[in-house]
Amino acid sequence: MDRIYLDHAATTPVAPEVAQAMLAYMTQNYGNASSLHSFGQEAKEAVENSRDHAASIIGAKPEEIVFTSGGTESDNFVFKGVALARKDKGNHIITSAIEHHAVLETCKFLETQGFSVTYLGVDEYGLVDPDDVKKAVTDKTILISIMHANNEIGTIEPIADIGAVARDHGIYFHTDAVQTLGHCPIDVDALHVDLLSASGHKVYGPKGVGMLYIRKGTRIAPLLHGGDQERRRRASTINVPGIVGFGRAVELAKGEMKEEAVRQSALRDRLIEGLHSSIEDSRLNGHPAKRLPNNVNISIAYVEGEAMLLTLDMSGIAVSTGSACTSSSLEPSHVLAAIGLPIELAHGSLRLTLGRNTTNHEIERVIEVLPAIVRKLRAISPLYQRRA
Amino acid sequence: MDRIYLDHAATTPVAPEVAQAMLAYMTQNYGNASSLHSFGQEAKEAVENSRDHAASIIGAKPEEIVFTSGGTESDNFVFKGVALARKDKGNHIITSAIEHHAVLETCKFLETQGFSVTYLGVDEYGLVDPDDVKKAVTDKTILISIMHANNEIGTIEPIADIGAVARDHGIYFHTDAVQTLGHCPIDVDALHVDLLSASGHKVYGPKGVGMLYIRKGTRIAPLLHGGDQERRRRASTINVPGIVGFGRAVELAKGEMKEEAVRQSALRDRLIEGLHSSIEDSRLNGHPAKRLPNNVNISIAYVEGEAMLLTLDMSGIAVSTGSACTSSSLEPSHVLAAIGLPIELAHGSLRLTLGRNTTNHEIERVIEVLPAIVRKLRAISPLYQRRA
Repeated sequence: MDRIYLDHAATTPVAPEVAQAMLAYMTQNYGNASSLHSFGQEAKEAVENSRDHAASIIGAKPEEIVFTSGGTESDNFVFKGVALARKDKGNHIITSAIEHHAVLETCKFLETQGFSVTYLGVDEYGLVDPDDVKKAVTDKTILISIMHANNEIGTIEPIADIGAVARDHGIYFHTDAVQTLGHCPIDVDALHVDLLSASGHKVYGPKGVGMLYIRKGTRIAPLLHGGDQERRRRASTINVPGIVGFGRAVELAKGEMKEEAVRQSALRDRLIEGLHSSIEDSRLNGHPAKRLPNNVNISIAYVEGEAMLLTLDMSGIAVSTGSACTSSSLEPSHVLAAIGLPIELAHGSLRLTLGRNTTNHEIERVIEVLPAIVRKLRAISPLYQRRA
Repeated sequence: MDRIYLDHAATTPVAPEVAQAMLAYMTQNYGNASSLHSFGQEAKEAVENSRDHAASIIGAKPEEIVFTSGGTESDNFVFKGVALARKDKGNHIITSAIEHHAVLETCKFLETQGFSVTYLGVDEYGLVDPDDVKKAVTDKTILISIMHANNEIGTIEPIADIGAVARDHGIYFHTDAVQTLGHCPIDVDALHVDLLSASGHKVYGPKGVGMLYIRKGTRIAPLLHGGDQERRRRASTINVPGIVGFGRAVELAKGEMKEEAVRQSALRDRLIEGLHSSIEDSRLNGHPAKRLPNNVNISIAYVEGEAMLLTLDMSGIAVSTGSACTSSSLEPSHVLAAIGLPIELAHGSLRLTLGRNTTNHEIERVIEVLPAIVRKLRAISPLYQRRA
């Protein structure tokens, strides 16, 4: 059975070109990038080449990029690093209720350490209102963090407008761009962003590597102490193959981003339309237009998301009920709660996220299979029988 | 020119079997290990298989292993996590003056946060005296951390004896085993270790992945907040290919460790003898017997380590002047200072660390080339001309 993978927001396959590039730095040019000998210098050169690519795709300078172990580390680095470096200035942080857990759990931790956090609500589409950000600012605010696009419902936030608020008040502005790097254009100057998190494995690069953009002059304490790697901003032996893969992935993404956004948006819209027209009592979550090109998130009444997921899996179709990071818990999604979705509908939600290799044929197959599964599940659902 | 790599303490090549195992989980079984569908479950199974190998090689249970991004993260995790979880009990930490920078810099950081750290001195061989540990214990001591073997001079510490002191006082005991995992036998029970750090890339596994052993019942706060991966002890998308590589590397190491220790010790001793007998005014640093099987660290009077390193590199021989993590700084090694080596001798130090692929022929070549380089450098050294 040919499997259909529609969970690209959870993770993407590593592009063959990326894997090949990494392989050379694992078994041949395996030096430690801090070593002075030729093995080390070859490794260092490859890392700096990746740094150039990583900087270039967001309009930054190479020295503003720090490589990390992934999006979660980058987010932890930002919050804990700014909290520590700026606590003389204030103890207030502004974020939104729909951020990734890497942000929300870090905020919860900081609340136990004397910091105060405002979690802004969102509208029915998941949009943060820049005016709400403005109203939340106090003279103790040291950081504003709003994600670029939501990982569950795909809504793209008005980052440039929020960034302008932050800049006007002289407050550091961070965005978690894990879902957008390599998928949507990013310009840190146009967005007024001071700090930006991204991850390799969401853009056909390797797991275990990410980056943090730190605008020149931004005061931030390190999260990892030790050796003097990454200009003393992140200790740890430099993950040469991972960073080489990250750089190659970003380079590939840059070349195809525009065309892929058009292609995937069309497939996405066909999928939304195909499912909506054949499944009654279903609704699209997230903004209809301000939306990631690859994201479909639908709620289907009277069925459990997990039951649909497992039945689809038996048909060889891989989807998600929400964020993979918490998919093993049974709590309803905090994002769907924040957009005001009733809990019963939230439990019947599916996220289907397209990718570079997704075909027309695959989308048509899902439009054929999923409605049939819903009919079958509803036939045995007491909720469906009792509906008004 | 065939290059000779004698810097295995800085990093090792990834074993071909390891790279192959990783490749499959990059391009084929690329799921997110937290996903419920088949891609995710395949990934999860591979991760748990690696966890079994990682636990088995140190005599631990799989659920006591947390995968991290490397040795530095593991060390940071231990110190910051125990400090946070145990600060109600006390604020005193005991470590040694010759630890890795990941430990020492983290301790320096904790000193700015209200903790007090005792840095124990070592003898001329780099050995920590368990009696000194005992004497340093106060009723505020919450953590004792002594490395298993030193990364620069190769001295193996009396961990079981120090562990017994910690156990007798009911204090958590951590060892940084980055240089010993897969090279020397480790049994966490016999060593009385509660926490143990290790890294993949020192044992022919990938960079960017490591582990922390946490004995059941040990109270430690997480370093990375976010999703509920690793039983909520370490958030972040699980680095499936990295962990698969780590597991395979550990499995390979377990099979060959005993034989390789014998083989490499013999080559090491031949190298020590060959260099010592042909370079006057040279000395071995570290303990002559309680020593890593692959470590040679010598100080050569009247020449600069960096000059020898660069000249050897031109002959295709890669060595180090000390820890790679700080090799770009010009400060003399804190380890050589701690064993009482005069600063002039410390500056003339070289570390040559052997590996799985090191041959007899390579060792003989170094014994031929290095003395000639020393003679050449001394011929132009004003220090050598002025010697008594």
